[in-house]
Amino acid sequence: MGEIVLHSYFRSSASFRVRIALGLKGIAYEYAAHHLVRGEHRQEGYLSVNPQGLVPALVWSDGTMVAQSMAIIEFLDDMVPDPPLLPPDPHGRARVRMISQMIACDIHPLNNTRVLKDLRSRFGADDAVISDWYARWVHETFRPLEKMLSESPATGTFCHGEQPGMADILLAAQMGNNLRFGVDMAPYPTVRRIHKACMTLTAFAQAAPEHQPDAE
Amino acid sequence: MGEIVLHSYFRSSASFRVRIALGLKGIAYEYAAHHLVRGEHRQEGYLSVNPQGLVPALVWSDGTMVAQSMAIIEFLDDMVPDPPLLPPDPHGRARVRMISQMIACDIHPLNNTRVLKDLRSRFGADDAVISDWYARWVHETFRPLEKMLSESPATGTFCHGEQPGMADILLAAQMGNNLRFGVDMAPYPTVRRIHKACMTLTAFAQAAPEHQPDAE
Repeated sequence: MGEIVLHSYFRSSASFRVRIALGLKGIAYEYAAHHLVRGEHRQEGYLSVNPQGLVPALVWSDGTMVAQSMAIIEFLDDMVPDPPLLPPDPHGRARVRMISQMIACDIHPLNNTRVLKDLRSRFGADDAVISDWYARWVHETFRPLEKMLSESPATGTFCHGEQPGMADILLAAQMGNNLRFGVDMAPYPTVRRIHKACMTLTAFAQAAPEHQPDAE
Repeated sequence: MGEIVLHSYFRSSASFRVRIALGLKGIAYEYAAHHLVRGEHRQEGYLSVNPQGLVPALVWSDGTMVAQSMAIIEFLDDMVPDPPLLPPDPHGRARVRMISQMIACDIHPLNNTRVLKDLRSRFGADDAVISDWYARWVHETFRPLEKMLSESPATGTFCHGEQPGMADILLAAQMGNNLRFGVDMAPYPTVRRIHKACMTLTAFAQAAPEHQPDAE
């Protein structure tokens, strides 16, 4: 059995998610940095690991490569069940996956680096336009997210009860980006409360971009 | 126990996914149409069902609402395990979720109606620019997807072995969109072969946009 390797970039919020999951599970891993801005993820060496050329990708100790952050988190939950990152009941799992996918599908893909670069080159979008675009997709999802979290009895200290799980991982990583891009989080008190609870935990704090070996 | 209701729009490819899953499971449901182009999903009645105002959303017989198509598919797999839409082994599940998320996270969110409308109004994008944008994200993901499918011994008649599952559902629904937008699928023979195998199955064929009650 080889080492577990995480292919990552310090500022990638999808990588941030997987780093939190690995931390919560207490799984030791080797950190392989790929500098996205320098295009290192598009080089042949990395494409032979993950043909999609995106981070994160996890290489498990048996050599299995898993890409896509939510697939990786579910894989980790299958391989190392304790502590669980998804609830034991189908209804709870559905709620956690729904919240996770609201962020993973409806915000992040629109706001990641390759898309913002495309908007700049294709449409000549400047910083102000990029900020407005970025904020639009955050607010479109955070408005209903705040409502769903604040109104549900299933919400606890964390998105789902009293233990941090997949939804909190997605939320915390997205919040890191929102703050970096200066998106106003004032309208979302429940989201902010949960984010604060997350960041007091070592697994979340240690996974933050500024604590990675490739941080600038 | 009430009826199971699927909130859908015939042309929504995320709704298409859930319709296939319901068909494969043999689950009877009421079809509630929301005309996205007329903005019916943004009206109060529907927002009280799904605060995100997007389709699909499933309301289960016990009143539970689940939004986000992959969360719904996993919920269906939990509630009605036969036939399974995910493999029994963690490695297989990870592969199916990875393929599914490549489509659900890296193509669809960039190419759905609300985003294309934003590009038109914000940047004055015309049909040619929209087509080019659309095709870019399809090809960026289908290139590695074709490679992963064609090179893996886990690929069978379908994306993962000899039974259709979640990855095939995502692939077939995306292919419907690709063909409608005229994206060239010639470079992807394995994808085309799997898509063809899917569409011979009643559950896939009957879930297609043109067979829905709200089809135009």
